[in-house]
Amino acid sequence: MDTQHPAERILLGPGPSPVSARVLRALAAPTLGHLDPQYLAIMDEVCDMLRAVFLTKNALTFPVSGTGMAGMECIAVNLVEPGDEVIVCVNGVFGGRMKDVMSRCGATVHALEAPWGETFDHEAIAAALERHPRTKVVGIVQAETSTGAHQPIAGLAEIVHRAGAMLVVDAVTSLGGHELRVDDWGIDAVYSGTQKCLGCPPGLAPVSFGERALAAMDARKAPVQSWYLDVSMLRKYYTSGGGGRVYHHTAPINMTYALREALAIVLEEGLEARWARHAAMHARLRAGLESLGIGYVPARSLHTLNCIHIPPGADDAAVRRRLLEEYGIEIGAGLGAMAGKAWRIGLMGHGATVRNVDLVLTALAAVLGRR
Amino acid sequence: MDTQHPAERILLGPGPSPVSARVLRALAAPTLGHLDPQYLAIMDEVCDMLRAVFLTKNALTFPVSGTGMAGMECIAVNLVEPGDEVIVCVNGVFGGRMKDVMSRCGATVHALEAPWGETFDHEAIAAALERHPRTKVVGIVQAETSTGAHQPIAGLAEIVHRAGAMLVVDAVTSLGGHELRVDDWGIDAVYSGTQKCLGCPPGLAPVSFGERALAAMDARKAPVQSWYLDVSMLRKYYTSGGGGRVYHHTAPINMTYALREALAIVLEEGLEARWARHAAMHARLRAGLESLGIGYVPARSLHTLNCIHIPPGADDAAVRRRLLEEYGIEIGAGLGAMAGKAWRIGLMGHGATVRNVDLVLTALAAVLGRR
Repeated sequence: MDTQHPAERILLGPGPSPVSARVLRALAAPTLGHLDPQYLAIMDEVCDMLRAVFLTKNALTFPVSGTGMAGMECIAVNLVEPGDEVIVCVNGVFGGRMKDVMSRCGATVHALEAPWGETFDHEAIAAALERHPRTKVVGIVQAETSTGAHQPIAGLAEIVHRAGAMLVVDAVTSLGGHELRVDDWGIDAVYSGTQKCLGCPPGLAPVSFGERALAAMDARKAPVQSWYLDVSMLRKYYTSGGGGRVYHHTAPINMTYALREALAIVLEEGLEARWARHAAMHARLRAGLESLGIGYVPARSLHTLNCIHIPPGADDAAVRRRLLEEYGIEIGAGLGAMAGKAWRIGLMGHGATVRNVDLVLTALAAVLGRR
Repeated sequence: MDTQHPAERILLGPGPSPVSARVLRALAAPTLGHLDPQYLAIMDEVCDMLRAVFLTKNALTFPVSGTGMAGMECIAVNLVEPGDEVIVCVNGVFGGRMKDVMSRCGATVHALEAPWGETFDHEAIAAALERHPRTKVVGIVQAETSTGAHQPIAGLAEIVHRAGAMLVVDAVTSLGGHELRVDDWGIDAVYSGTQKCLGCPPGLAPVSFGERALAAMDARKAPVQSWYLDVSMLRKYYTSGGGGRVYHHTAPINMTYALREALAIVLEEGLEARWARHAAMHARLRAGLESLGIGYVPARSLHTLNCIHIPPGADDAAVRRRLLEEYGIEIGAGLGAMAGKAWRIGLMGHGATVRNVDLVLTALAAVLGRR
């Protein structure tokens, strides 16, 4: 197979999403040193832009030097230590991973489970907090990429804070595509990835920590188990301007250029316009799928990720292979409990266009023999 | 400051090193999905090429999705668990970091110290192993980036293995620039970074694990504290061909293209020719520096990183700033105990050329008023 010339796919799976020519060009700019004044200015701008996209004033907002799961782990290792109790809401693969990651930090994890595809009532979370009054952190996934379920977050922080806990939100598949208001919603820590609705290649994980999270980190008894992700050191690089900056590790320089360009595109479009575009493309896709007789797995679907039932009689792998080979379109297979039962069609960032929606509907109809 | 057009620096610091146009072009190729058959072929090829560059047959050889320090942490969290005893050789910043990282894994770390700039006699390591007969791992830095000291590794594994321990080597600033023979030298686990002598931007950390390391991981009692870096899961993605591959996290796709191209360039030149080029450029720089009356910090200097005394009367920051502003040349400041006392001139990968050596000598002479 040709390993030198990656094909021009239309990425309509669960991520990575299509990357615009503008972002790819930015990625290929000359490499600067990680302590070069110009690079530090770029990094500062990226952090400012991330604050704008997260809708937060949190000083400690920066891209972790890893992919989305490194963002999850960064928040877990810094906020959770041995002996802590946490509640993790599990209704799919990524809630399950958060449970695993927080367990590895030495916490006692109380898993609040919901069937795959469903979301959590805030009352159920309030009840779990009453059952576990020592809870330090409640972790929840806004956009469960394995099921396409869209978890309501607004209003939840009040319940969590009333119980003396912090709210941690996984926004990997929502940031830049779905409404997310870190400050207005009172979220204490949030992480995302660059390769979903931000339209950037994978390689960085934007995170943001609020005041409660900072206080919890300052009050830690145990050292952070990860050196690479230890925010007590990272913040000396990312939030100390000028001469106070302390080298920690060599950041992924060129990926930072790409993220800067991707965030510029997000802010040029405007967050609300972007959310509306993702909503409109989801509605367009949904109407087309329903006319093909294809239904959705979750009752409350994400706009950014459409998890649909594989129609009876369709050969899962063969359909996806034909879409890839004949149309250059990638859609996602089912993940975990959904393997073989669902497809996942992502409409994220640069990929959420009328052109792509109509093309994938046309291609699916053709491959399924529906026309 | 202009944050949209990164300047064309000549990167002669401790890394990142200059990235060729060929590698930057590869970086900007269209983004594939991380489970696309073409991407898997690219990843397999990268792993094959890494084996060639590490001079190993180790099946478990792959790029960790983070920068160099993520590679160090990946090896530490997988090989070391609470209750283990390890010996870490500390003669600079990066040995000190390895000690810190392994401590965070719950190990009892016996630090074997040497003055900054010096290296370790193998006899001293043998004696430490006698003092600490329960030692599981000996960690050592081949290329100490903070002091420029070049640690001999050949022959050490026999001593370490005779004591029943494993040898872990930091090759961040040596891989692709200095002789390193993972199999012939019996190294059990090794990590590096892409942004030094491989000539690729930062963002990936090549690692390789040998048979002893695999057996130690299989015999673990405690779960690996990092989910992101847990090799028991990562190996199902990186070493299982075809249908057996299990998704773990979204790899940094475009960085993988860049690494493929950078490794192709290394192998086209040939490892021995590349080592010889780095040796020749070091000799050329050294002769020029000595004619300017500038001496080296370490007795046994790396070819890839030249740590030199700041001449009496020279203003550390002002000289570096003038090199950057007037010549577009980055050299490194002293790090840790060397801050304000040393400069670090890197000649790595694409940057180790006659053109760059003669230019930095000319520029230094001009800025220091030596001509």
